[in-house]
This record gives sequence, C-alpha cells and structure tokens, in this order.
Amino acid sequence: MAAAIELLEHERIDELERNGYRIIQNEKKFCFGMDAVLLSGFALVERGELVLDLGTGTGILPILLEAKTEGEHFFGLELQADMAEMAGRSAALNGLEEKITIVTGDLKEASKIFGRASFDVVVCNPPYMKQNHGLKNPDGPKAIARHEIFCTFEDVAREAAAVLKPGGRFYLVHRPQRLVELFETLRMHRLEPKRMKFVHPFVTAEANMVLLEAFRGGRPEMRMEAPVVVYEQPGVYTKEIYEIYGY
Amino acid sequence: MAAAIELLEHERIDELERNGYRIIQNEKKFCFGMDAVLLSGFALVERGELVLDLGTGTGILPILLEAKTEGEHFFGLELQADMAEMAGRSAALNGLEEKITIVTGDLKEASKIFGRASFDVVVCNPPYMKQNHGLKNPDGPKAIARHEIFCTFEDVAREAAAVLKPGGRFYLVHRPQRLVELFETLRMHRLEPKRMKFVHPFVTAEANMVLLEAFRGGRPEMRMEAPVVVYEQPGVYTKEIYEIYGY
Repeated sequence: MAAAIELLEHERIDELERNGYRIIQNEKKFCFGMDAVLLSGFALVERGELVLDLGTGTGILPILLEAKTEGEHFFGLELQADMAEMAGRSAALNGLEEKITIVTGDLKEASKIFGRASFDVVVCNPPYMKQNHGLKNPDGPKAIARHEIFCTFEDVAREAAAVLKPGGRFYLVHRPQRLVELFETLRMHRLEPKRMKFVHPFVTAEANMVLLEAFRGGRPEMRMEAPVVVYEQPGVYTKEIYEIYGY
Repeated sequence: MAAAIELLEHERIDELERNGYRIIQNEKKFCFGMDAVLLSGFALVERGELVLDLGTGTGILPILLEAKTEGEHFFGLELQADMAEMAGRSAALNGLEEKITIVTGDLKEASKIFGRASFDVVVCNPPYMKQNHGLKNPDGPKAIARHEIFCTFEDVAREAAAVLKPGGRFYLVHRPQRLVELFETLRMHRLEPKRMKFVHPFVTAEANMVLLEAFRGGRPEMRMEAPVVVYEQPGVYTKEIYEIYGY
C-alpha cells in the first residue's frame, strides 16, 4: 500500500529487502547502520507484544521488527522533531500507520510519556561514545546518534527498566569496550544480562559490536551465542549476514 | 634432564608436546582439560616476571607457562597434599626444580603465604560450579576441582588482587554463564576486566568457556578478541587448537 510520499531535500528512499518495505533517509543526517539490522535479528518479539524503540532515528528498528515478528504494536521515541517526522513518513510509506507510532520526545522521560511497566520489549541502539570523546560537531544529528550528548547509558537503562513489565526484555547493541560498565549499569537497574552475541568483522578479528539481551528481574545466568562474522573476505559478506539482511 | 621418577598406583605419564615436557596424572583424580591448555596460551607472561597459579592441581599451568614464556619463576599453590606432591614430581620429571615451586596450602590464604603485592601475574583455573550444584561425591579431588567446595570465586578474586603488584595481571578461565557475576566480583576487588576471549566448541555453537584478563587497578576498557573455535568437524580440531596444543 505504498502511498505517494513527498521527499525533502537530501532525502532518498532505500529498499529494506523485507516484505517490500522501504525507508526514507536523509544523507545529511544519521543513516542507519549494520548495528540496527543485526539488533533487529537478535531481538525476540512474540505474537501480541508491545515494543518500544528508545531513540528510533530513521525508524529502522520499528520497521524491521514489524517485518520480522508478530508483535502487536511498535513505538519509536525520537528527540529530534525532524527525524521523528521523517520516521513517521517512512511508516506511512509502507502502509504501517496502524502498526507503528513515532512519538517526538526525550528518552530520559520515556516512563513519563508512556507510563511505567507498559512494554513487553524495549530495544535501543544507543550512542556508543562518551560525550566528549573526539567530538567535532556536537549539534548535528550524527553526533547526537553517536555520542552521549542528550542521554547517557544510565538514562537508557533506567528508562528501559521503568517502562518494561516485570520479566520484560531489553535488547541493545553497543561497543564491547564498554561491556563491564554495561553489565554494572544494567544490574543497577535490575536488568539482568541473559544472552549475548559478539559481532566480529572477520573471524580472526576482535569484536566491534555486542548484542545484549537483559530481563527485567531475571535470574543470573548468561548464554554466550555463537558469534556473528560479517565478512567472508574483504567486501564479501558471510552467508549469515546475507540472511539477516534478507537478500 | 628427565630424572627417573617413581609412579604411584593409577598414575601415568602424558606427553605435553612442548619442549619435550611430560606430566604425571592420576586417573582416579582430576586430570587437566582443554581449559588449562587454552589458558596457558591466553595468559601473557613477560621476561623476568613472577607467576602464581592458584589451585595448581597437576601443575599443568606452571609447566606449560614455563615452556611458553620467559617468566622468572612459577609458583603453584595446591590445597590437596597428594596432588601437590605429584605436581612437584612432574616439575622434577622435566628438570624444572629451579623454575617451578609447588606449595601445599589453601588459596584462601595465598596473601598470607606469599605476602601482598608479590606477583606480576596470577593465573587460575577455578572450580566452575556452585558448591551444591548437582554434586554426588563432595570429597573426591574431581569434585574439589569442579565445585566451589573449598573456595568460592570471591575467595579467588580477593586473593588474586591481594598477591598482585599494582598493575599486575590476573588470567582466568570460567563458564560464560557466570560472566556477569565474574565482572562484578573482579571489580569489587579492583581487578578491571580488560581482555576477553570466548571458546566455542563449533563455530555455530554457544560458547562454553571464557578466557579473561583483568588488571589490578586498570582503567575500564574491554577488548573482545576473536573467538577460539575448538572443532572443525566432530572429532577434528581446528588449526588454532593444534597450534595452541603445540602439535
């Protein structure tokens, strides 16, 4: 049901290779990366569940999760009004207005906006870098997506815990360098890390991403899944990556 | 300079495929596993450093580390007098009396036995299982090696931190299931996890071991190394495993 959609300057439409879905991206702003796609394959959403994406950006996670799961409804919370508006147009572009709701607002106030204990699943692809780590242009949407300018990981964990129902699941992607801090912060908010998957660019390379599942109020026991390897050889994806991308 | 060595009942001599070294093992007691061999390949020991193995068992770690590194001296602390005596005979079997010292004693008292801040490197292949987890024969040396009967991970971390010099390194192998707890306990004792490597039986299987490096008083930043995969196909080791084993 692709409606006629107006594109603004620097916007383009990309194919998602899932259900025929497409997404609007603005080349001057933040475009989604492999981390969001891998997170959409790692997160488990059951039939009928309510899902919230904290800091949805382009809306990539609600759109891919709608394509891949039988969740009931997908909310995306986005601070930047222009990004939120664009994500809303992407939902409409795919005829998903009844399944995806984009809300403009600050993730630090997610539990005020949506109410406590209101979601089965929370997902987040948060900024990876500390606020002042090599930052050149702190106002741009790329900096906001990559650096902890408007929210820290503590804000993310606190709000994820607050909006999740007891036993609800939180899925995130982050940098392995911060793993010890991630565990500590999650536990501080009673989100128990339960399942983990590392992403290695090559089979012999160090991991550059970690996918993490935490349960609100879970019993301590971690499962370490087989790693994801991205490239078979330079420029050639592994079979697993092609499958996650849906080619 | 292999001396003539007397074997007790149920004892046998195994080749280590390193420097022509051999080790005495008792089939009725605990024999070393792949975890110890992988840990000996993961641990870094610089020229001239002093190394302590907490709970040395057969003495496998001091012997392999002596073969693989230029460390100055290797101490093994072992609670069970008969195991310690056998480990001492293995050191002598390889003519390593000047490089390896086996001490009979309780790792919970390591800092009393050796003094605080006296080692550059501590290694440990601790019991993986909680005390009462499926235990049938709590008195045997196999149960002592596998279950937290005589020491908990907290004891191990506390004593490792106490005997390490500032900036010293602690290397351990454990089960991924307990990773969150390991991080928390290490940090509680100011041992900062810095480098990690998971061991997967097959490339598509969940990890069943984790190798961990922590620095006493280190700055938080984790490196996630490429994983170790053990089997190429059932019964056939990967090239990496053959290299670590030294075949």
